[in-house]
Amino acid sequence: MNHIGNRLSVKNIGIDTYRENIVFMRYDCDVCRSEGFTALTRVVVSNGAKSIIATLNVVTSDIIEHHEAGLSSESMKRLCVKSGDTITVSHLNPIESFKNVRGKMYGKRFTDESLTSIIADIVSGRYSNIELAAFITTCVNDNLDIKEIIGLTKAMIGTGLKLDWGKELILDKHCVGGIPGNRTTPIVVSIIAASGLIIPKTSSRAITSPAGTADTMETMTPVDLTIDRMRMVVEAEGGCMAWGGAVQLSPADDILISVEKALDIDSEGQMIASVLSKKASAGSTHVVIDVPVGPTAKVRTEQSALHLQNQLAQVGSAIGLKINTIVTDGTQPIGKGIGPALEAHDVLAVLRNSPSCSVDLKERALLIAGSLLELASSCKPTEGITRATQILESGAAYKKFIRICEAQGGFREPATSSKQFDVIAASSGKVASIDNRTLARVAKLAGAPKSPTAGLEFFAPLGSSIQKGDTLFRIHAESEGEMNYAKAYVSSIEPIVTIL
Amino acid sequence: MNHIGNRLSVKNIGIDTYRENIVFMRYDCDVCRSEGFTALTRVVVSNGAKSIIATLNVVTSDIIEHHEAGLSSESMKRLCVKSGDTITVSHLNPIESFKNVRGKMYGKRFTDESLTSIIADIVSGRYSNIELAAFITTCVNDNLDIKEIIGLTKAMIGTGLKLDWGKELILDKHCVGGIPGNRTTPIVVSIIAASGLIIPKTSSRAITSPAGTADTMETMTPVDLTIDRMRMVVEAEGGCMAWGGAVQLSPADDILISVEKALDIDSEGQMIASVLSKKASAGSTHVVIDVPVGPTAKVRTEQSALHLQNQLAQVGSAIGLKINTIVTDGTQPIGKGIGPALEAHDVLAVLRNSPSCSVDLKERALLIAGSLLELASSCKPTEGITRATQILESGAAYKKFIRICEAQGGFREPATSSKQFDVIAASSGKVASIDNRTLARVAKLAGAPKSPTAGLEFFAPLGSSIQKGDTLFRIHAESEGEMNYAKAYVSSIEPIVTIL
Repeated sequence: MNHIGNRLSVKNIGIDTYRENIVFMRYDCDVCRSEGFTALTRVVVSNGAKSIIATLNVVTSDIIEHHEAGLSSESMKRLCVKSGDTITVSHLNPIESFKNVRGKMYGKRFTDESLTSIIADIVSGRYSNIELAAFITTCVNDNLDIKEIIGLTKAMIGTGLKLDWGKELILDKHCVGGIPGNRTTPIVVSIIAASGLIIPKTSSRAITSPAGTADTMETMTPVDLTIDRMRMVVEAEGGCMAWGGAVQLSPADDILISVEKALDIDSEGQMIASVLSKKASAGSTHVVIDVPVGPTAKVRTEQSALHLQNQLAQVGSAIGLKINTIVTDGTQPIGKGIGPALEAHDVLAVLRNSPSCSVDLKERALLIAGSLLELASSCKPTEGITRATQILESGAAYKKFIRICEAQGGFREPATSSKQFDVIAASSGKVASIDNRTLARVAKLAGAPKSPTAGLEFFAPLGSSIQKGDTLFRIHAESEGEMNYAKAYVSSIEPIVTIL
Repeated sequence: MNHIGNRLSVKNIGIDTYRENIVFMRYDCDVCRSEGFTALTRVVVSNGAKSIIATLNVVTSDIIEHHEAGLSSESMKRLCVKSGDTITVSHLNPIESFKNVRGKMYGKRFTDESLTSIIADIVSGRYSNIELAAFITTCVNDNLDIKEIIGLTKAMIGTGLKLDWGKELILDKHCVGGIPGNRTTPIVVSIIAASGLIIPKTSSRAITSPAGTADTMETMTPVDLTIDRMRMVVEAEGGCMAWGGAVQLSPADDILISVEKALDIDSEGQMIASVLSKKASAGSTHVVIDVPVGPTAKVRTEQSALHLQNQLAQVGSAIGLKINTIVTDGTQPIGKGIGPALEAHDVLAVLRNSPSCSVDLKERALLIAGSLLELASSCKPTEGITRATQILESGAAYKKFIRICEAQGGFREPATSSKQFDVIAASSGKVASIDNRTLARVAKLAGAPKSPTAGLEFFAPLGSSIQKGDTLFRIHAESEGEMNYAKAYVSSIEPIVTIL
């Protein structure tokens, strides 16, 4: 459908619309008039060799000329064009795969084929944000059955790279999240790699939390590794801590996550598909999954945890992964820091065997590392934790951590925020409950994870004795606006820490 | 949260992003830096007296200066600002009502209170397109129970104007749609008003169809009436045919419809709330609802029609409306034309008692008008159709139609398209089936309803005898691009008309 007459000249108008491709065209240009385009029409923009799908914003001013079209910054990159290049703009054919999403809304099941075509279309950028939001909403709660979750997982594996390490035993771990500050990965990877096993770890950035492992690691070392770099790091050190998005193991996932983030939801089926597709694509064979349970964690009851454990096992088995799920305490934050750099400080204290390190973070990391050592049959079935503790406390894990960071591009100490504010106890007593979700929201309002040193330090674990005037938590921010916003929010809500 | 330092000067950069408010700010301006704003941050833009919620697009070029902010065309109108005016830009507080949408995804029921707050937030523009898509998706299929539908209807009544005609008996009609060309309203309104009853009709524009009644009427008379004008028309003539959106009877509805349109879905619960809230807000007391049933109509089985009839009656009773639902044949198009002006030509032929008028359109209109006359006790319970036929065939209905159009601002003959293309029968035989949905899609691809004379004329009703080479339907378009696109689509799919 590319007509010869639809040629326009690209103009870089320097507008950043993030992931959504926008093309800016004059309402009175020949192409708009002959094609019948109006504001928000979805169109195909092509440079001859490559094409993208974009949403039209109509321009009525002189920022572009009649023969020109503006493109948003990301769109120019994706299409590999610069000012003056020629593009064509044409109608978008109806997206056939979306009729399966519509069918799902009306109670039909997704087939493997329909999920494959949906994920392929999402990866090629054919879905608008509105269509993505609808797809995600049809997948929440228990709307996906186990067959659909397996289909989605396979579809997601099918769209990305697939790594092959040429080894029989490749370890990996994942935490289902929902507990602020639960940053065990760098410690676990260091212990496992130090033990001589292979753990090529990729992590995501934050979805609905104030920091993902990739955000935390990025305050200490580059995480945006190419596949070649990642392979080099793993071959040299046995482990790595890379951002999964950069290596494109599951390109669908990052697109879905950006919309999930805007909706502040997680879907269990999508989460399973997201996690296990990345593990499979990364070439992992044995995976430990940590599921923290607590009233304000992502998984709220033992029963839900068992349900999840069962689903993970079924999907894992369908795609050839050996999975060990461990259910852990998710009633309160792990470690003191919540936010990328603040969590990095906690991680370093454990790795450096600092006497003031967070004992809970250390114990959680040892539990997971121990479980991995057992799953890999690298020690007797009951001796995982003992073995992991030896490796950590000997300093071997820290040495390995620094070597991995150096291999990734260099280690640096994480920074500290420029603005801090203490939230003070209004009465004395014992800490009876903590609202983890609201705590995470405060850290996000303070700027985490976008501002790396933003977030909070938490000083009032469950059961601890508090005196009136003690600091319950300290807010960290990089800008006055974000600090004011976090403070205003804290003062507008019920106390986050209940003292009885 | 409006900080004194967040002032920027408005610049009209002439970018039309339709309903979505966009603010364009330099990445390096003081406000972005101090507040921590980045691309796609949702912000509050205020001129002191009024504020709107907008999505941020970051600008890296010189189209705006450091102290300036650009606003999309609609945003400038909504905020009533012009170039040089001062605005402030600040963080958006989390939208509290959206947590109810999230709850609904996880199986919770909406309460009356949560629906009231959701609809209020939607009307005030607080929901992004992504959030609207999620809300709509949670409402499709049978996801809303009768209590929720009643709550949604009441919430929608609560946000718009409420008309009071000072009369006990106010008639109205509605067709659930899904059948192309089913344009009975102008005929029914003319008959009822000519009989001396009151029928202040408001209609919507197309949702997923090639034309709504408002689109069709607009090819003959202004439909964008103020409340005062509408009242004047009804007082003078007993009836009107106005666009519902212009009188703001249910402002939530037009916002929801714009996203439903992008998703190409209809939700039964939302449809009931949409229809009945508008009827109640328009001050109607007695309403006839036409539910066409057919394999490719919106309602596909008798059973679904009965279910809908039952729900309409329950919701109507909860909000004080007397409803008569009639289930009609929805197996094929009504009338020849599909598209705004093409349907207007059909309507005029019936009103003018032209010998070549569409008999099916005439009969359908008489059935509905008769049912309304009976519901209003304006004739004996079995004599509605006879009475309606007298009024139509005497010419009284046409006279009334022209008088109503004149009162609305003047009558004009609908125009005819500049480009036409005949789709020809490839074989001879009888018409065995018609794919109404695909037919509607062809009319839409040809430009309906945005291009008023676009759409198609259909010449092959079910059961009719066709000779090879006969015209099955004629595509009408206003631009070469749209015509090519509709033709390419027709040649890429299975035949729309099956001849056996």
